[in-house]
Amino acid sequence: MDEKINSVLRTAVVGYGYWGPHMARNISQISGFELSAVIDLSADRQAIASEKHPGTPIFSTIDEAIKSIELDALVVATPTHTHFELAKTAIVNGLHVIVEKPLTTDVPTSMELANLAIANGCVLMVDHTYVYSTAVEQIKSLVDSGDLGELVYFDSTRVNLGLFQPDVSVLWDLAVHDLAILQRVTGRMPTAVSANGGQHRNAKYEAAAFLTLYFDDLFFAHINVSWLSPMKIRRTVLSGTKKTVLFDDMLPDERIRIYDAGVEQNESTLLQYRLGNILVPKLANSEALRTELEHFRECIKSGSQPISSASSAVEIIATLEAAQKSMESGGFLVQIDYSVC
Amino acid sequence: MDEKINSVLRTAVVGYGYWGPHMARNISQISGFELSAVIDLSADRQAIASEKHPGTPIFSTIDEAIKSIELDALVVATPTHTHFELAKTAIVNGLHVIVEKPLTTDVPTSMELANLAIANGCVLMVDHTYVYSTAVEQIKSLVDSGDLGELVYFDSTRVNLGLFQPDVSVLWDLAVHDLAILQRVTGRMPTAVSANGGQHRNAKYEAAAFLTLYFDDLFFAHINVSWLSPMKIRRTVLSGTKKTVLFDDMLPDERIRIYDAGVEQNESTLLQYRLGNILVPKLANSEALRTELEHFRECIKSGSQPISSASSAVEIIATLEAAQKSMESGGFLVQIDYSVC
Amino acid sequence: MDEKINSVLRTAVVGYGYWGPHMARNISQISGFELSAVIDLSADRQAIASEKHPGTPIFSTIDEAIKSIELDALVVATPTHTHFELAKTAIVNGLHVIVEKPLTTDVPTSMELANLAIANGCVLMVDHTYVYSTAVEQIKSLVDSGDLGELVYFDSTRVNLGLFQPDVSVLWDLAVHDLAILQRVTGRMPTAVSANGGQHRNAKYEAAAFLTLYFDDLFFAHINVSWLSPMKIRRTVLSGTKKTVLFDDMLPDERIRIYDAGVEQNESTLLQYRLGNILVPKLANSEALRTELEHFRECIKSGSQPISSASSAVEIIATLEAAQKSMESGGFLVQIDYSVC
Amino acid sequence: MDEKINSVLRTAVVGYGYWGPHMARNISQISGFELSAVIDLSADRQAIASEKHPGTPIFSTIDEAIKSIELDALVVATPTHTHFELAKTAIVNGLHVIVEKPLTTDVPTSMELANLAIANGCVLMVDHTYVYSTAVEQIKSLVDSGDLGELVYFDSTRVNLGLFQPDVSVLWDLAVHDLAILQRVTGRMPTAVSANGGQHRNAKYEAAAFLTLYFDDLFFAHINVSWLSPMKIRRTVLSGTKKTVLFDDMLPDERIRIYDAGVEQNESTLLQYRLGNILVPKLANSEALRTELEHFRECIKSGSQPISSASSAVEIIATLEAAQKSMESGGFLVQIDYSVC
Repeated sequence: MDEKINSVLRTAVVGYGYWGPHMARNISQISGFELSAVIDLSADRQAIASEKHPGTPIFSTIDEAIKSIELDALVVATPTHTHFELAKTAIVNGLHVIVEKPLTTDVPTSMELANLAIANGCVLMVDHTYVYSTAVEQIKSLVDSGDLGELVYFDSTRVNLGLFQPDVSVLWDLAVHDLAILQRVTGRMPTAVSANGGQHRNAKYEAAAFLTLYFDDLFFAHINVSWLSPMKIRRTVLSGTKKTVLFDDMLPDERIRIYDAGVEQNESTLLQYRLGNILVPKLANSEALRTELEHFRECIKSGSQPISSASSAVEIIATLEAAQKSMESGGFLVQIDYSVC
Repeated sequence: MDEKINSVLRTAVVGYGYWGPHMARNISQISGFELSAVIDLSADRQAIASEKHPGTPIFSTIDEAIKSIELDALVVATPTHTHFELAKTAIVNGLHVIVEKPLTTDVPTSMELANLAIANGCVLMVDHTYVYSTAVEQIKSLVDSGDLGELVYFDSTRVNLGLFQPDVSVLWDLAVHDLAILQRVTGRMPTAVSANGGQHRNAKYEAAAFLTLYFDDLFFAHINVSWLSPMKIRRTVLSGTKKTVLFDDMLPDERIRIYDAGVEQNESTLLQYRLGNILVPKLANSEALRTELEHFRECIKSGSQPISSASSAVEIIATLEAAQKSMESGGFLVQIDYSVC
Repeated sequence: MDEKINSVLRTAVVGYGYWGPHMARNISQISGFELSAVIDLSADRQAIASEKHPGTPIFSTIDEAIKSIELDALVVATPTHTHFELAKTAIVNGLHVIVEKPLTTDVPTSMELANLAIANGCVLMVDHTYVYSTAVEQIKSLVDSGDLGELVYFDSTRVNLGLFQPDVSVLWDLAVHDLAILQRVTGRMPTAVSANGGQHRNAKYEAAAFLTLYFDDLFFAHINVSWLSPMKIRRTVLSGTKKTVLFDDMLPDERIRIYDAGVEQNESTLLQYRLGNILVPKLANSEALRTELEHFRECIKSGSQPISSASSAVEIIATLEAAQKSMESGGFLVQIDYSVC
Repeated sequence: MDEKINSVLRTAVVGYGYWGPHMARNISQISGFELSAVIDLSADRQAIASEKHPGTPIFSTIDEAIKSIELDALVVATPTHTHFELAKTAIVNGLHVIVEKPLTTDVPTSMELANLAIANGCVLMVDHTYVYSTAVEQIKSLVDSGDLGELVYFDSTRVNLGLFQPDVSVLWDLAVHDLAILQRVTGRMPTAVSANGGQHRNAKYEAAAFLTLYFDDLFFAHINVSWLSPMKIRRTVLSGTKKTVLFDDMLPDERIRIYDAGVEQNESTLLQYRLGNILVPKLANSEALRTELEHFRECIKSGSQPISSASSAVEIIATLEAAQKSMESGGFLVQIDYSVC
């Protein structure tokens, strides 16, 4: 419980490139937050931030900012390889932190941040925005209520013509979302992964990746992510013995469809399928990012762990590391070790 | 060249279960063909055939049929494990043969049939219907003309709530279509495959399968097939450096979409994407099955090999065998040996 | 009750142009019916019929057919202006009759046929195929159960790039379907109509028509039909105070969508809308034409009036006549007189 | 030419209800504009404006604002019946004005404003946002280039579950958009209109309206607008003898589709249709409202008339007045008199 939090969370955003401006704008608009500073090394980006947020202090480094003003929280929106140092500095200085995904690209550094945050009484949240969406909440409630029956498979496609990340494969940019959704709605993580990837001739890392995830029973998952598709697809299917739910994020008014369908064994031991009604539930209009920020603030107040905590992110990173390893071997099955998480 | 073929191809259909009635009806309606007999062991199915095709002779076995009437051709629409014996008998008796896919489930038996057909001067065609569709023809012409540029990737999804095959995995039922399309439009076959699968708890074989196919350059392919999805999806993407083509077989009036889009390297060595117009070409209305049957007849007349020849099918079977082996090992990369094909 | 009907209804089809072959094929396949003859004046069309239905007698005129063979029923699939004479001849000769829509293009001749059929103990059915579809049955049951609440409006769009009828406007070709659906699902007919139309410069009659239908309360309906649209649209909306149902005939797997939505008055007398879940019910797979033919046979057996009886068709023709009159005046409101129906 | 305009247009927004906040936000963000004041009678809305735009002066009336600060322009976003007085006051005080549609609800008052603006050297623009969209620009260029051929018909559907306007029918709220698009892309206005409407039992004015518009040749148009549909539809079709263009505003990535299709007369004087490719052109990403505001500023600088000038709005109002009159008579054809425009 952070007693120093009163009405407003004084928040700085470090990194004003692609995602930073988005966070800065939201923080400046959501009540309970104050955009107290923007931090970026680039003079050009400082100028843009200055124009968008007149009156907000601008700094070149986090150290400068901490020295100059009072801060309660930091949003880290810089390139992935800088996350560790920035988050560490913030935590050591007693700030609550939101880090853009992925937290880091290996388990040890992620674990170190998670532990450091606990030791310093700071909330450390990873920005897995999807897990705060009403669509994912709806899927989770279908699982928890037993409406889907026993889970059979999860299949997710997340492809578009995307910005190639210069220093990581598409796994770390896109599959991280699918794993966060999978973790949130099923409460489970895979025991092993086989992954394959494809490269564009002009790029260094895989621009398309295909993961098959194995669990400790017959439940299985598949994830198809790519920066190469001119069609933007965001479709996630979770199928159970009773019902199947489809999440299509490209259909703003009909994100969720629940199919009353399943595969069943009849008397004669043959498999039969059953296909019934489809329900498109009305979802509340709340925005995921607002929900996420409010949840962050709530966790600070109550001293509790966020849904997208650093330790839940560590499990995802362990899976991504294993997937990257499998991908580099051409699909070899890699066991995932969560014992250190 | 089959001189005995005059105006009409006297054709029998063996197997009157799911696919047989469909073929029998088409053969009875397409000019140049005569439905000369239906062959099925089951009295019930014989009765149904008799009602649908009054006057057409019905037999229990192929031997009976061959003994009793004059035949030029046989369509084999029986369960997969019977294909080899039936096709062999037909060829030995000098009949031209169409076999439902897959031809057989291993390379040696498929090769034996291919060689036997050549030795006996018979046309042996595998029913890869898709390769005779106007949509696939259109994709092929985009590749051949260079409109797509150099090929980057192929990604195909073929899922629905399907009849579980009792004795083979979904690979042999569905992925065979994607491989036939891939082979037809690119003229290439993979050098290695990594495959993974998922099982339904009540079934013996994989009901979902995911293949990644590697080639002798950076071109790659992915195939996702399943009998478990309440949504029926039939989407195939072929992407090149200049354009990308999408084949969606569930949109009867707009099966093909050509995206003027690509990923390009700019001066500064960064990758950029370009997204332009989309073209939905008008396709001719011809039916694939009619085109296929006319092609079969044409090959008999001219003595040439059909597009979906037994030897092209052998390459597909070699790939499926390797994929099945990889799938059973959890994704281990398996090299594909075409030297025997 | 027609005692002479035993197991099979001996049925002739007159008119083997566009719709006739479709009916002939269905009649030859549905049990309980026998295709006993095809009648057409054109030698070319006789030849086609002969090839499609080997063994079936072919005649040039209905009189020839009646003289030569035993018939129980006649399907009239000739141009509209010939319906009256052909149906009359059939009824006078004791045949049960199905007539393609529209029955005729004026109330008096339609009434004469309706009365003649009653006098001769014949079933006279108009081929309003839609009213026998599972989708329309579903809408009707939503109305009858009160699920929709009180009816607010009906809005139907039926446009495509169509064959121009040489002797009637699009009203008689397409709007007839919407009126048949409206009549079936609501059990109501309009009291007045205002209609407008548009012509193609090369055609004599209206190729697009827009109808607004008024009833004896605030319920209203609008129908938009056209032969000029390159997009084929078949969408019918029926909205009530509680729910709204959408029938989209171009979506074979999701023809019906039920919106839990409505407009309501709140305390402060302001209107508010409410938008909730959407349900896509699973519809039975039965084909409308088969249901229609079985219903025809059932009516003959039991001596009852068909759903799409001649007298229900007369109401539709009265509405179309009024609409045509209004359309020719540029939208003048025309009262519809059903007193003669 | 307004010499006093230097770098920034000092702009006030009057009316901070539904549309006002939207305009205020845009004005505060687009360079070349300064949000100099918000004006609203309601203390509650003043408070909201104050929170959203800290530092911006808030006033209760336009007179107060004019007295207190320097202004160059006013955006009128109040209820329709107040437009006339507010715009007049602004113009008399030398301000350039943007008025929310409709300008007024009758021709004389609209004309008076148009004339007053000219007399005072002010730019008076009506906020017909659609005419500044890239989609409408694309349609206009297809017409102007002759690609569509001669125009055949225009058909627009604009329905949703909408806020009922308390003092006008849906015509003035929604059909005004379709008329503005029609005017912009064809450069033509109808000579006569027949309109029909439907009421909700709890509302005073028509909540659904159907217009058929006649021109001085065979070209015709139909508009279907409603506040009663749970499905939101925004579809406009413009069909020519050579091609047809479809504008579907609900498909953000594929707003425009160009059908290479038409109806043609063949040698034998029969009408035939032709259906070819479909093209989905890539549209520029510019936002309509930004384009509109930049155009407003440009007109002020150059002293020219805006595309959505008061005088073009007068033609639309004349049409809407005629349509309202026709609607109240049940569809009677009303000639439209533009002589006063």
